[in-house]
Amino acid sequence: MSMGSLVIAVDSSTTSTKAIIVDSAGSVLSQAKVEFAMSTPRVDFYEQDPRDWWKSTNEAVGQAVAQLSNTDRGRIKFLCATIQRQSFALVDSEGTPLRPGILWLDGRAAEQVKKIGSRRVHELSGFQPDTTPSIYKIAWLKDHEPENLAAAHKVVGVHGYLTHALTGQWVDSVATADSLGFLDSAKLDYSAELLDLIGIKRDQLADLVPAASVIAPIKPSVLKDWGIKQSVELVAACGDGQAAALGAGAIGMEEAYLNMGTALVAGVHSPRYQIADVFRTDVAGIPGQYVLEIVQNSGAHLAGWFRSELGNPELEGRPDPELDKAAAQVATGCGGLVTMPYWNAVQSPFWDPIAHGAIIGLAGAYGRAEIYRSILEGISLTMATNLHALANTTGVPLRSVRVMGGGQRSPLWRAIMTDCIGLPLTSCDTEEISAMGAAVMAMAQTDAYDSVEEASKGMAALGDTSEPNLKNHEIYLELAELQNQAYPALKAIMDRQYQFSLRHPLH
Amino acid sequence: MSMGSLVIAVDSSTTSTKAIIVDSAGSVLSQAKVEFAMSTPRVDFYEQDPRDWWKSTNEAVGQAVAQLSNTDRGRIKFLCATIQRQSFALVDSEGTPLRPGILWLDGRAAEQVKKIGSRRVHELSGFQPDTTPSIYKIAWLKDHEPENLAAAHKVVGVHGYLTHALTGQWVDSVATADSLGFLDSAKLDYSAELLDLIGIKRDQLADLVPAASVIAPIKPSVLKDWGIKQSVELVAACGDGQAAALGAGAIGMEEAYLNMGTALVAGVHSPRYQIADVFRTDVAGIPGQYVLEIVQNSGAHLAGWFRSELGNPELEGRPDPELDKAAAQVATGCGGLVTMPYWNAVQSPFWDPIAHGAIIGLAGAYGRAEIYRSILEGISLTMATNLHALANTTGVPLRSVRVMGGGQRSPLWRAIMTDCIGLPLTSCDTEEISAMGAAVMAMAQTDAYDSVEEASKGMAALGDTSEPNLKNHEIYLELAELQNQAYPALKAIMDRQYQFSLRHPLH
Repeated sequence: MSMGSLVIAVDSSTTSTKAIIVDSAGSVLSQAKVEFAMSTPRVDFYEQDPRDWWKSTNEAVGQAVAQLSNTDRGRIKFLCATIQRQSFALVDSEGTPLRPGILWLDGRAAEQVKKIGSRRVHELSGFQPDTTPSIYKIAWLKDHEPENLAAAHKVVGVHGYLTHALTGQWVDSVATADSLGFLDSAKLDYSAELLDLIGIKRDQLADLVPAASVIAPIKPSVLKDWGIKQSVELVAACGDGQAAALGAGAIGMEEAYLNMGTALVAGVHSPRYQIADVFRTDVAGIPGQYVLEIVQNSGAHLAGWFRSELGNPELEGRPDPELDKAAAQVATGCGGLVTMPYWNAVQSPFWDPIAHGAIIGLAGAYGRAEIYRSILEGISLTMATNLHALANTTGVPLRSVRVMGGGQRSPLWRAIMTDCIGLPLTSCDTEEISAMGAAVMAMAQTDAYDSVEEASKGMAALGDTSEPNLKNHEIYLELAELQNQAYPALKAIMDRQYQFSLRHPLH
Repeated sequence: MSMGSLVIAVDSSTTSTKAIIVDSAGSVLSQAKVEFAMSTPRVDFYEQDPRDWWKSTNEAVGQAVAQLSNTDRGRIKFLCATIQRQSFALVDSEGTPLRPGILWLDGRAAEQVKKIGSRRVHELSGFQPDTTPSIYKIAWLKDHEPENLAAAHKVVGVHGYLTHALTGQWVDSVATADSLGFLDSAKLDYSAELLDLIGIKRDQLADLVPAASVIAPIKPSVLKDWGIKQSVELVAACGDGQAAALGAGAIGMEEAYLNMGTALVAGVHSPRYQIADVFRTDVAGIPGQYVLEIVQNSGAHLAGWFRSELGNPELEGRPDPELDKAAAQVATGCGGLVTMPYWNAVQSPFWDPIAHGAIIGLAGAYGRAEIYRSILEGISLTMATNLHALANTTGVPLRSVRVMGGGQRSPLWRAIMTDCIGLPLTSCDTEEISAMGAAVMAMAQTDAYDSVEEASKGMAALGDTSEPNLKNHEIYLELAELQNQAYPALKAIMDRQYQFSLRHPLH
């Protein structure tokens, strides 16, 4: 057994905080998870008590450390905490919240997106106008709660909030603060132009440090609570999306990661800051790099929707092996049936919040299995098209994909996705993939590795590889052309549907 | 009890022949039904033995007569037989078939439709280029079985075939022969131009007589078999679609009929021959008139498809009262969800055999009940749009609709259809509505009535009337505008889907 350094890695996500303690081989020695709540005071409003971000982190780390022997506790050198992106808090000088934190999925700022969202904001920040980045919700606060905004000692994301709790300093990582939406991401600093737009002052923001740099030692009182006697330093993290790529060892421009979760997220690392419709541009966990990130909000969620709403009612939406079996026997391409999978609107590449889904080409020959397959094909073709557009933008063709998330555990969907993309898909066996990414950044500070890249390659646990059937891939290339026509063809109708739904809502 | 004349009415349809014996009030004294088979020697080929047309008619009438007292048998004066349209036979001089009869739903002639179908054929015959009218199948025979076509003593539809069996004469009604597709329907005579197109000679065709005229006495040998001693004369019928309108008493330009069957068929009578995209133009059972006929092949069939394929598997497609109840509670207009109901291609008004269906605007908020309702709304909105276009073409606004067929027995669908159309819908209580139309034509020859119109009004049995909710109608008018955009928006994609399906078929 190696007696090298250990690191604590935290993933503070929307519903829970996970803590893992990891060695330099990527083995997880212990782990813990603490859940916490979200409140929805109004339709489309999503809030959290920022104190829960810290409380859950403190408890989860404490539980994970408690499982270690005294010897192993003594091996811990660094802690790194990746976080849910775009969620933020307004705090006073003590770090006490002035109001609930507003979360990434909060949709209150649609009007502010229209008002201040622009190509210029995208160019500077890397983010398409959309209700997700914090900047629009801060603009909402300026319109609706100007007193809170003016009174805020600091406006911080989850990473900045946790850094203060852990070290007493107001410091944030450029690779987490970027998701606030007002960084000049090319310069890795706050944009005066964007700050002017929302009327906050630079001294209301945390100081920025590079990703994967050491911020400061963790407070002795905190370490003492965890039962750790030596000094442990906090390492600047990146957002959970970028961290997942590091945890999967996907660090080249030729090597994409693909998270087949509730939503589908995919991307590549790139040394160059660039923007495009098809991806948003995150600051990477590898210093000096960016993650070009494709987002499709209708992922495994949509397959689950079909099973719940149009599947066998007895199964109540659970996986249906008979349905999977029947869908596997349907001809590749479903005879031309096209599903436009925008049940949760479209992000990459159109970023249209009022778009919806469509199934085109229905006939009597189509049944439950065919439509289910078409939905899986629709999601996967859209991803294939987005990855293709991404590679076209970088100029570097993709050679392989690291795949993770619940969706890849469906052999049917995995096979369809592999054939749609037309590249080998290698699964990642790590369960807490974003936390592993944080562990990679922390471990890069130890003697075990010379860089984040090396740590990422050394700690990723790879599983099986699925190879594309090239004949099926050709069929999917044809079908993708049809699918690509659907959004432009239906855009005008969907705009009118949105207007109709305002006058005559479903509920 | 009236001791007036009785008539025998026959409906020789695609799967069975029904015979009813009716008095001048429209009361059915007796009835019988004989089923017969169809063969599908190849995909899309549908054939029948023409001898079964006569055999089933002979048996059904014999059974219906046998149920009468001797006195009532003596009251029978006329027989009229409406028929499945467009189906036809090639026969020798004895009336013996040279090959199986080819049915209306046979799709073998797609290539011939492309080759000889044209606006000109539509102008002359009243029928849009489509695989249904006999003319294209005769063109197919010319290409594939020229020897049979040349050898045919007569080329006759079901009415011409039955007339020969009943009277020994080769005579057809203009209101049944029109569906062969080579009449000059404005002139009520065969079109030399159309006959040239398919290379058949005029003497290969039955002589034409006006609708509702007396053709000839029925052969004594036939009457004797039925147990009838007096002379009974055969009256020239019309096709089953037109006959249903007569049976329902829908005879004015302001009064449409609507058959909510497997397919949806609707229309009005008109004294003027005119053509339009939205309707095909049939010769009416009322002499000198036409029926402007809307056709939507995806009717009750589509609702059944949904229940079979996406409903509760336990019910195996049977009506689902719980689903109906849930769908009834969904907001009118389904929040803007649009269903383009072309599962069986589109007839009125686009007549595009490669079009398919689509559901546009899907989101997580939509479930089984919402989608089922959207399908019923989609079918009904399309019918409302078609009826509106029909009235625009005639210049005569519709005032009411006579509704029949299995679909109207669903309170949910009946209510949606009424609100979509925005007019009162009065149901017809007659079960065999097409046979009743034939009875109307026969009874018009007796002393009881002076005309087909009078007989139609006197014999129709009307049920309840549903009144539209005008607030819902306004919502549907808005939704119809969105639905009307769908076909033009998706036409190019559907054309490519068809090409795709030829290269990569579903089965």
